[in-house]
Amino acid sequence: MKNRIAFCVSDHTGVTVEAVAKSVLAQFPAFEFSLIMLPFVDSPEKAQAVAARIAATTDALVFSTLADPALRTLLRGSHARLFDVFDLISPAVENVLGQPATPSGGRTHGMANNYELRMDAVNFSLALDDGLQPQRLDQADLILIGVSRVGKTPTALYLALQYGLRVANYPLTPDDLEQNGLPGVLLAHLPRLRALTLSAERLAAIRQARYPDSRYASLAQCREELAAAERLFERHALPVIDTTRMSVEEIAARLRNP
Amino acid sequence: MKNRIAFCVSDHTGVTVEAVAKSVLAQFPAFEFSLIMLPFVDSPEKAQAVAARIAATTDALVFSTLADPALRTLLRGSHARLFDVFDLISPAVENVLGQPATPSGGRTHGMANNYELRMDAVNFSLALDDGLQPQRLDQADLILIGVSRVGKTPTALYLALQYGLRVANYPLTPDDLEQNGLPGVLLAHLPRLRALTLSAERLAAIRQARYPDSRYASLAQCREELAAAERLFERHALPVIDTTRMSVEEIAARLRNP
Repeated sequence: MKNRIAFCVSDHTGVTVEAVAKSVLAQFPAFEFSLIMLPFVDSPEKAQAVAARIAATTDALVFSTLADPALRTLLRGSHARLFDVFDLISPAVENVLGQPATPSGGRTHGMANNYELRMDAVNFSLALDDGLQPQRLDQADLILIGVSRVGKTPTALYLALQYGLRVANYPLTPDDLEQNGLPGVLLAHLPRLRALTLSAERLAAIRQARYPDSRYASLAQCREELAAAERLFERHALPVIDTTRMSVEEIAARLRNP
Repeated sequence: MKNRIAFCVSDHTGVTVEAVAKSVLAQFPAFEFSLIMLPFVDSPEKAQAVAARIAATTDALVFSTLADPALRTLLRGSHARLFDVFDLISPAVENVLGQPATPSGGRTHGMANNYELRMDAVNFSLALDDGLQPQRLDQADLILIGVSRVGKTPTALYLALQYGLRVANYPLTPDDLEQNGLPGVLLAHLPRLRALTLSAERLAAIRQARYPDSRYASLAQCREELAAAERLFERHALPVIDTTRMSVEEIAARLRNP
C-alpha cells in the first residue's frame, strides 16, 4: 500500500472539498491517503503559509475550494498538484451559461444558509423527541415512528440540522404493539408518518450495548417487537425504511426523496 | 434574473454533488437556479429514467457524482450539459498517481462511515446536554460552555453527527456567573473546554422568540451575562468562539481546527 498525504484547503469550512476529496480518492484503492484539513484559508497570508507547509511535504496532493483565483495562484507556488473544484468545474459552466464566474467568497454553499431555521428545527426535534408533546405533532414536517433504539432520534436531528426540517419522533412501545392499530394520537397525521425498521440482530446488538443481558435486548424480544411494528406499518400502508445497512445521510436522503 | 434548472444526480445520497453544485452556481449571481435532487441513481434503468426527465427540461444544467462511467454515458443521452465530479477531477488525479481510477460505487465518502461511532456520539451528547451527568464529563472529547441559548446544543449535536465526537455541553447560569471562577465540576477538564459567545443583540432576539418580554430575554440581562461569561473565559484562558455570524458548520470546523 502506497501512502500519500492529501491536503483539503478551503476558504470556508471545508465541508465541500473534504467530500470531493474522499469521493475521488476512494477510486484509488492501491493508495492509502492521509487527509489533512486546512479550512478558513481566506487571505493571501494564510494561503502563503499553507503553500509553504504543502511544499515541505513530499508528493502531496492538494484538493481545494478557493473561490478567489489569486489564492489558488499562491497555493500553486507550493509546486504540489492542485485540484481546485472551481478551477476544474467552473469553466465548463461558464461555457454553458455564457458568463464568467464571479468569485463569491465561499460562503454560499447551501448548508451555511438559514441558520435560524435549522436551529429552530433542532429545538423542535428535541422538544418532540421520543413522543414528547404529542399535541404539537401537527407542527411537524415529518414524524418518525418505530420501536425503541431503531435510530429515530439521530435521524430526526440530522434532518433538522442539515435541512431545517421539523422532525418529531414517536416510539412504539410494547403496549402500542399489542393494539390493532397505531396509537390514536398518530392517526391524525398519517401522511407525515415515516416508519423505521432494522434487522432484529442489529437491534439486539444496539440494545445489548445499553442494557446487557436484559429481556429488552434479547433477540427474541427484538424479533417480536419488529414483527408487530411491521404489521402495524403495513396495516396503515406507511412508507418504511430498513436502516440496517444505511448511514444516517442515506436514511435522511431517502426520507427527503420518497 | 434568468432562471435555470440544475439537476444534482448521485448514485448515493447526493450530499457531495449538492455541495459542489451550490458552490459553483453561487459564482453566477445573474442567474437564479432551481436545484432538483436526484439521489440513488445506481442502475442503468434509473439513469435512463433520469436522462428522459432531464431531456424534457429546457436548458437544464446537470451536476453529477456517478462513479460508474456507464451511468454517466446514459445521462449524456439527455443532451443536457453534464458536469460530473469524477469526470472533471479524476483524470487529473489519475495523471498524478499514475493509475486509472476504479469506479467504487459512491459509498465511500467520509460521512457514510462509522455509523455506530456517530450514533454513540449523538447518544452521549444528548445524555450530557445542558449540564446533565457531570460525573461523565471525563468521557467527553469536548465540553462546550456558555450562557443559556448561545447555541451549545445544536453545535454539540452537529459535531457528534458529523464527526463522531462526544461533545458535552454545560450552561453557565446567572449563579455561576456571579462566582470568581468556573463551576468546580468543570475545573478538572479545562483542556477540553470550549467557550461559545455571541452578540447581546442576537442573544436577546433568540431568547425573545422563546420568552417574549421576559427579564431573561432583555438586552440588559443578555449584555450582563455575556460580559460576566467572557470574564470567566478570560480568567481561565479558554478558547472562545463568537458565533454571531457563523453557521453551525463553521462553528464546528473552528472547534475541530483550533
